[in-house]
Amino acid sequence: MRTQVGIVGAGPAGLLLSHLLHRCGIASVVLEARSRKYVEERIRAGVLEQGTVDLLNEAGVGARMRREGLMHHGIELRFGGRNHRIDFAELTGGHGVTVYGQHEVVKDLIAQRLADGGDLRFEAEDVSVHEFDGARPKIRFQHQGTAQELECDFIAGCDGFHGVCRPSIPADRIKTFDRIYPFAWLGILAKAAPSQDELIYANHPDGFALYSMRSPEITRLYLQCRPDEDLSQWSDERIWAALHKRLGDRADGWRLNEGPILQKSVTPMRSFVTEPMRYGRLFLAGDAAHIVPPTGAKGMNLAVADIRVLAEAFDAFYRLGSEEGFETYSETCLKRIWRMQRFSWWMTSMLHRFDDRSDFDQRVQLAELDYVTSSRAASESLAENYVGLMRR
Amino acid sequence: MRTQVGIVGAGPAGLLLSHLLHRCGIASVVLEARSRKYVEERIRAGVLEQGTVDLLNEAGVGARMRREGLMHHGIELRFGGRNHRIDFAELTGGHGVTVYGQHEVVKDLIAQRLADGGDLRFEAEDVSVHEFDGARPKIRFQHQGTAQELECDFIAGCDGFHGVCRPSIPADRIKTFDRIYPFAWLGILAKAAPSQDELIYANHPDGFALYSMRSPEITRLYLQCRPDEDLSQWSDERIWAALHKRLGDRADGWRLNEGPILQKSVTPMRSFVTEPMRYGRLFLAGDAAHIVPPTGAKGMNLAVADIRVLAEAFDAFYRLGSEEGFETYSETCLKRIWRMQRFSWWMTSMLHRFDDRSDFDQRVQLAELDYVTSSRAASESLAENYVGLMRR
Repeated sequence: MRTQVGIVGAGPAGLLLSHLLHRCGIASVVLEARSRKYVEERIRAGVLEQGTVDLLNEAGVGARMRREGLMHHGIELRFGGRNHRIDFAELTGGHGVTVYGQHEVVKDLIAQRLADGGDLRFEAEDVSVHEFDGARPKIRFQHQGTAQELECDFIAGCDGFHGVCRPSIPADRIKTFDRIYPFAWLGILAKAAPSQDELIYANHPDGFALYSMRSPEITRLYLQCRPDEDLSQWSDERIWAALHKRLGDRADGWRLNEGPILQKSVTPMRSFVTEPMRYGRLFLAGDAAHIVPPTGAKGMNLAVADIRVLAEAFDAFYRLGSEEGFETYSETCLKRIWRMQRFSWWMTSMLHRFDDRSDFDQRVQLAELDYVTSSRAASESLAENYVGLMRR
Repeated sequence: MRTQVGIVGAGPAGLLLSHLLHRCGIASVVLEARSRKYVEERIRAGVLEQGTVDLLNEAGVGARMRREGLMHHGIELRFGGRNHRIDFAELTGGHGVTVYGQHEVVKDLIAQRLADGGDLRFEAEDVSVHEFDGARPKIRFQHQGTAQELECDFIAGCDGFHGVCRPSIPADRIKTFDRIYPFAWLGILAKAAPSQDELIYANHPDGFALYSMRSPEITRLYLQCRPDEDLSQWSDERIWAALHKRLGDRADGWRLNEGPILQKSVTPMRSFVTEPMRYGRLFLAGDAAHIVPPTGAKGMNLAVADIRVLAEAFDAFYRLGSEEGFETYSETCLKRIWRMQRFSWWMTSMLHRFDDRSDFDQRVQLAELDYVTSSRAASESLAENYVGLMRR
């Protein structure tokens, strides 16, 4: 079996790459360890920067997103009994973000790839990547009970943080940077009418909480918890009590709506970067190369930004024979990645409780929130990063 | 002996308070442990916010500052081989800072107090404060070989971080917040023509360095060093070599000028806040209540801001019998203090090398510098804090 680009992973990165390559007339095969149902139902990020929305629209896979996605023009910060809106539209000249679940993007991309006759292999087991330091990389895997080998010109490692591609690069040829946070997010999906459209980020003495909505019927909520939190200790009642306390029902009538909890999970928090994001003919993209804590809502946006750069590099290579895009891929992506790592770290640092922080550090944290919500320059700084706009 | 306000400490805070009280017709006595010569030659901060300049001018002690002070409309940040100017005037609508040494302010205030017949007692030994939880506080001290007692309505503790006033408050009635940094500044005064007017803040792999000038003949320079740095290990040659390396002589001809080193010292770095800043009839102001690392150039400006609030409180009390200014003194000052603590912590954190930081944290630091120098909102944020302007 042969293709031009072998893609490992059918998350947003791998699927989008396969779709963009198809539009350039480049063949690819996507190998995914999980089932189609699993990846289509896997709840992840849900906030798209305008650049992400624009790319999906330009690529012709934005029709349902345009109908069902919700444009948000701000977020709220709650702390110390105060409630403060960061007005993205006013601060950035009309920009905002679109709320549309990552798994919806995945569904749209899978449907489009299948409609275009794309080669997607779900439940591909024991995937391994080989000979990517030479001209003929190979991907071996088991599919429907048979051992297979896919020979390709290039491999795109879009298989996430726990995937096989990054660890296949010799350890002395990449450098990794990471930070593990001393907390996690306990997330729930609830069948409850949203209490409001815009996201609420709350810094409370008990810990961070995040309110968000996914659709007119579904609310998505998070609570800061321990990394080793035992979900069996969190009854629905306990979860709702903690959410009400941290998000703070308000005198003006704002109240968190409750409903049946459809899903509970614990998400660990880390920052992680790989440098470079290429070794020979293997390119890493998305979570395979970098992880951000979800506080800044950047994970999927960074993956899409990688893929835009990588797809252009493949296009230039196959059309023009130019390898320049391959040479600059890593540096181009890493510039954005480090900026967004900084932002995600800063949002995380400003909004969570750190048990090991001194009283001084906690006061500085409150001073930061006070400053961000009272200085226009500081509010603008948060807004331009959140919407993904970098003015010079 | 009796007065209305007994002031401990003849630094900028104590002297300015005594002067402002005199202009309101309120009597004070200033007790200072050191000699007049010592305090007039003690090299400290040298960057005045416009609010500080305005207050000194309004109080009639700004004549020499207006002649000799140097208006700066920006600073430079150097890192990663780049040199970036933060243009305060352009970013804040014309604002800037005035470079005028703290000891020059002290000289001007002492001269004015003496011209006005002020009661300043230098070399007052064994100062202690008493009965400030009642209506008749007392200050005991030794002066010119005689034990003395000063009875007063109020005591102002302007005696710095190591002074006697703060520790005289029962420990369970105040809360302190602090952070000690794992480095110090090795500072020199050099008889060398300034290489340029504006300050240069350099983040170098060897550590932070700061270039500043004090007059057309005097350059003031700092190097990040260990808190326990042994000055005897730093020959003049070694100091200049380190400064050249960290500040980076430039291709465009910029070069650090050398000259005889007049003074060397090591300044420890800490952040410190006391809450509240009042106990009974004892008020703390300036370094007696709070310390900032010098990176943000805020120490004297915060002291002057405290004194403005405290002098107004005394004026309202003696003119109108109102104690409201006393009740709100602490809260009013602490709002500004925490904002400037955050800024000073942030500048310190962004510009120094921390040996205990991970590679990830160091990259985030560089990303912060990159962001601050490439986003207008972020540059504005630095500028408005540095010049002491808080737009809402």
